[in-house]
Amino acid sequence: MDDINNIRTLCADMVQKARSGHPGAPLGLAPFVYTLYTEFINFDPDDEKWIGRDIFLLSNGHACALQYAMNYLIGYLNMEDLMSFRQVGGRTPGHPERKYPGIESSTGPLGQGLANAVGFAISLKKLRHLGLSNRVYCIFGDGCYQEGIGQESFSLAANLKLDNIVFIYDFNKTTIDGPTSLSMNENVIQRFLSLGFEVELANGDDLDGIRKALNKKVTKPMVIILETVIGRGSIVEGSCKAHGSPLGEDGVRKLKEKFGIPEVDFYVSPSLLEKFRSLKEKKRKIRDEWNRKGIKVPTIQEHLEELKKIDTPYKSIYKPEGTQKATRKHFSEALKDLKETSYLIGGAADLQSSVLTKIGKEDLNAENYSGGYINFGIREHSMCGIINGIASHGYFLPYTGTFLNFISYGFPSVRIGCMDNLNLFYVLTHDSIGLGEDGPTHQPIEVLATLRATPNLLTMRPCDGTEVRASLYLALIREGPKAVILSRQNVPEIPHSSMEKAKKGAYYLLEVENPDLILLATGSEVQLCYEVAKTLSELKISIVSFFSWELFEEQEEEYKRCILKDVPKISIEALSTFGWSKYSDFQIGVDTFGMSGPWKDVYNHFGLNCKEISRKIVDFLNK
Amino acid sequence: MDDINNIRTLCADMVQKARSGHPGAPLGLAPFVYTLYTEFINFDPDDEKWIGRDIFLLSNGHACALQYAMNYLIGYLNMEDLMSFRQVGGRTPGHPERKYPGIESSTGPLGQGLANAVGFAISLKKLRHLGLSNRVYCIFGDGCYQEGIGQESFSLAANLKLDNIVFIYDFNKTTIDGPTSLSMNENVIQRFLSLGFEVELANGDDLDGIRKALNKKVTKPMVIILETVIGRGSIVEGSCKAHGSPLGEDGVRKLKEKFGIPEVDFYVSPSLLEKFRSLKEKKRKIRDEWNRKGIKVPTIQEHLEELKKIDTPYKSIYKPEGTQKATRKHFSEALKDLKETSYLIGGAADLQSSVLTKIGKEDLNAENYSGGYINFGIREHSMCGIINGIASHGYFLPYTGTFLNFISYGFPSVRIGCMDNLNLFYVLTHDSIGLGEDGPTHQPIEVLATLRATPNLLTMRPCDGTEVRASLYLALIREGPKAVILSRQNVPEIPHSSMEKAKKGAYYLLEVENPDLILLATGSEVQLCYEVAKTLSELKISIVSFFSWELFEEQEEEYKRCILKDVPKISIEALSTFGWSKYSDFQIGVDTFGMSGPWKDVYNHFGLNCKEISRKIVDFLNK
Repeated sequence: MDDINNIRTLCADMVQKARSGHPGAPLGLAPFVYTLYTEFINFDPDDEKWIGRDIFLLSNGHACALQYAMNYLIGYLNMEDLMSFRQVGGRTPGHPERKYPGIESSTGPLGQGLANAVGFAISLKKLRHLGLSNRVYCIFGDGCYQEGIGQESFSLAANLKLDNIVFIYDFNKTTIDGPTSLSMNENVIQRFLSLGFEVELANGDDLDGIRKALNKKVTKPMVIILETVIGRGSIVEGSCKAHGSPLGEDGVRKLKEKFGIPEVDFYVSPSLLEKFRSLKEKKRKIRDEWNRKGIKVPTIQEHLEELKKIDTPYKSIYKPEGTQKATRKHFSEALKDLKETSYLIGGAADLQSSVLTKIGKEDLNAENYSGGYINFGIREHSMCGIINGIASHGYFLPYTGTFLNFISYGFPSVRIGCMDNLNLFYVLTHDSIGLGEDGPTHQPIEVLATLRATPNLLTMRPCDGTEVRASLYLALIREGPKAVILSRQNVPEIPHSSMEKAKKGAYYLLEVENPDLILLATGSEVQLCYEVAKTLSELKISIVSFFSWELFEEQEEEYKRCILKDVPKISIEALSTFGWSKYSDFQIGVDTFGMSGPWKDVYNHFGLNCKEISRKIVDFLNK
Repeated sequence: MDDINNIRTLCADMVQKARSGHPGAPLGLAPFVYTLYTEFINFDPDDEKWIGRDIFLLSNGHACALQYAMNYLIGYLNMEDLMSFRQVGGRTPGHPERKYPGIESSTGPLGQGLANAVGFAISLKKLRHLGLSNRVYCIFGDGCYQEGIGQESFSLAANLKLDNIVFIYDFNKTTIDGPTSLSMNENVIQRFLSLGFEVELANGDDLDGIRKALNKKVTKPMVIILETVIGRGSIVEGSCKAHGSPLGEDGVRKLKEKFGIPEVDFYVSPSLLEKFRSLKEKKRKIRDEWNRKGIKVPTIQEHLEELKKIDTPYKSIYKPEGTQKATRKHFSEALKDLKETSYLIGGAADLQSSVLTKIGKEDLNAENYSGGYINFGIREHSMCGIINGIASHGYFLPYTGTFLNFISYGFPSVRIGCMDNLNLFYVLTHDSIGLGEDGPTHQPIEVLATLRATPNLLTMRPCDGTEVRASLYLALIREGPKAVILSRQNVPEIPHSSMEKAKKGAYYLLEVENPDLILLATGSEVQLCYEVAKTLSELKISIVSFFSWELFEEQEEEYKRCILKDVPKISIEALSTFGWSKYSDFQIGVDTFGMSGPWKDVYNHFGLNCKEISRKIVDFLNK
């Protein structure tokens, strides 16, 4: 126990030096994590991304002092890192971030790690036929359990019979505000049995019990309900006060005294160092042996490099027809046109007949991990968290679909996918009041503004079949997260739309000399601009397809100036006008909630037709 | 059964005439809903908002044809309403909307109704001492069960031992994409037992079984697992095809044939009409008897009218001190200064020691419904849905708190609260990168833009104790949803800040004649403007506190022009600059994800200090 207690004091030191952080969970979890790392987890001390590694996730990310201590002991971090815990410029931030050593995915917002774990486990199961038999270990706390995304993730994990995942419930019955009984009195064992989990119980200080649980052979997901005590060994042991505040100098001193650890800041005993030195040697041998098997697993990066060599593959095969078609249908057809899709994992939150993300691939389910389509159920949040896990693993490119409005259910995960700049894309259909009859509860208004305001996310709202092909091409080969925004209703093919030009974010569909005004529009509203230009024939009007704000921002100033000429500019988009002031002088859109009805009637109701728009433009120019 | 089958064909007619909608669930649920309305639910045919009524909620809102049919039969709607199902201008939209007759809350986005139900039940339990013993009946489907918000809501309902709530699970094991087994194989009975629910089973076509279940006396929340068949009686019975498409003319004809209903559009039999005519008479008698008890329950509207008479009650009692203080602390103190708070129900998602929304009120829990503070647990989504329910009932003003960043977890409910323009407010603290050490997973960037882009939501970001008092006053007396955005870090009291002027949304803190530029800022960044003005002393600088965008937009054009003078305007806010182009020519903010560290270091890292801002301003002016 001395080594374990030393890890405990190291965590307490980190939090104390930062004067900020969460000592409670690390103190309670140290025996488990120590046992896991020294006896179970496969890792490579020299390569944190070694394909043969097991995956360790801390869904209760606030406990990261413990993870950093382990990453120090196994060689991914150094002592300076521990000493700069929670400091600007350091590699040990307040919650784990994927960009730093030994962190598989960014966690902290509660429950996210549980969804990530399911994603990693899916990715590993798909690779099992190549000889990989790695496991995912995911620790979570009461907060993760209470969050809806947690319950969603458990349910899908059970449905997929993910036998390579071990959840560990840090069952300390304490949250920030007090005992969990303040807000919960579930029988959690019965809950996991109702899900179809393998359930093991262990005491957080009982190493034998922990070993026994971890050694259990299972054919379905397992949870170890680990009875721990928050702040174990400290003066605030068992109290919610241990959760989120440093122990204080006196508290740290008493902790060291209790455990017989020398009163030295960041003390690490020779025994502990030696233990991990020899552990690393052992792990290197295991790695070398494993590597001799010669298992080759191409990364998604390698796939994408190949893809990038093909310049807009649709150029040759897409032949616009005269018929009108919804951009969601165009996108689905474009996906089906792909020659090679083994690297893609698709899915939807029970709306595949609407979002059309199923492109002929078999279902990925408990009986068939070679499938490429996941039925996520009506669980947008865990869906987005799960594809974060798949993308974080780095061997598949995941994409999923739902109505644009319902990406809000999954937004906290979308946000982390953006923070980690993961390779994935969202297919978001029914993208405006054009959704029609389902009404305002389903019609997005503010959602596209949210996505555009989210750093790192590339949003694209194509206006026709041609731009849809550009959006799929970019969704595949651009690094980072992408969102493709697609219409429910039919749109015509737009004259002069261009795959090449769309890549610049905004471009002229119709350019006149010395224009009186420029119309900026996206998606299904582009066609309206042509009608308006015809109606206002006394005016010289240029039309810009504003396919993607983010791509446009990447262009050189001269190009931007050429698009945003110094004449009146008017934007048209059947969503909130929020944000458009950046590009246009006058905004036409929908700044209230929508209305139920056939889509054309709804457009008319909101004045989104040629007559009303023309009238508004004339009024604006006359002012 | 003839009457029930007639209700079924009426629903099929509605969907068929609209050529859009969901016939499956209405056909399966008709026997249950008929029994509920004719034998159990209390309602007043003449006043849909009668305080003595039971609450009926359809969490699977897509089944609303059935609810509209019932609302027609009990007199809230007429035949024209049924015939204009899903049409612009009608009162029977594609999903239930609270503004239309007989609808308690807007549902459709799945799971929301479950949270609403918990809110109504809490409100009713708080009123029980006045003699109210009403129940809440909430029907939900597989989608609501799968959504995280559903599981969160069940768990809190059980913890609060809400014995006045009956959930009815429309257990048809079918979702849009196919059988629920595609994504779920939970033992739902065991699940509800693990929660501590009373569980009853019934067959959806067995009226005796339904009666028996509904008659059960309980001391905790009950769920009736109702085995139904989607599309019952139709040619697509039991198939996912019954979910979301009209049956077709032939399908409707065959349905009527099967049930022996005349082949007449929107046929309603004399027997069915007579049944409900006599039911209404009976209900009127019950109502009259109940009303004779003379139970008086003041509505929140009446409370607010009283409050409005007091003009900014803090004027006399708030005396700014010289010390710096976080605006979250100011807000908590202002709440504590309120003399009368019986109409308020507060709460937080397990962060009360940080968001400070607990103001001395006792906990509201299973043992004490007179309490006024709810421990929602780490469940932001159901928290926001539950306060929608409380506010929809209309007898209390609910407010809750979390970190600004984590309102994203609850945003789908926030959105519906805004759509329904409910009286409630959010206390959103740790409102920028100023959150500090917890790092980018916790630091909001895009969130405030999302809230500002959401119709009907009044957002306020006060800069000091004075503006905080204005924000609380408005949070209390303004109708509709409000969000108060508050700092974690200390701020000084700002010279010339004003409760009165804040009500206009934006106002001059410092106004110079013929300014060279105007600085626009909110919250914790206002203080920076003074430093910048001092540093750039060669320039004539005016400073505007931009307390609330929405309030500013309500002002007259002349006032707006006077604030947004035709000189360079620069905005400063430690969040995404998205949207600020509407008011400023140059934006200073944070358009990437944040960073972990002490807040001042983080501000410096992002150039949000006097020196860097001054430099950027000079650069901008020189361009």
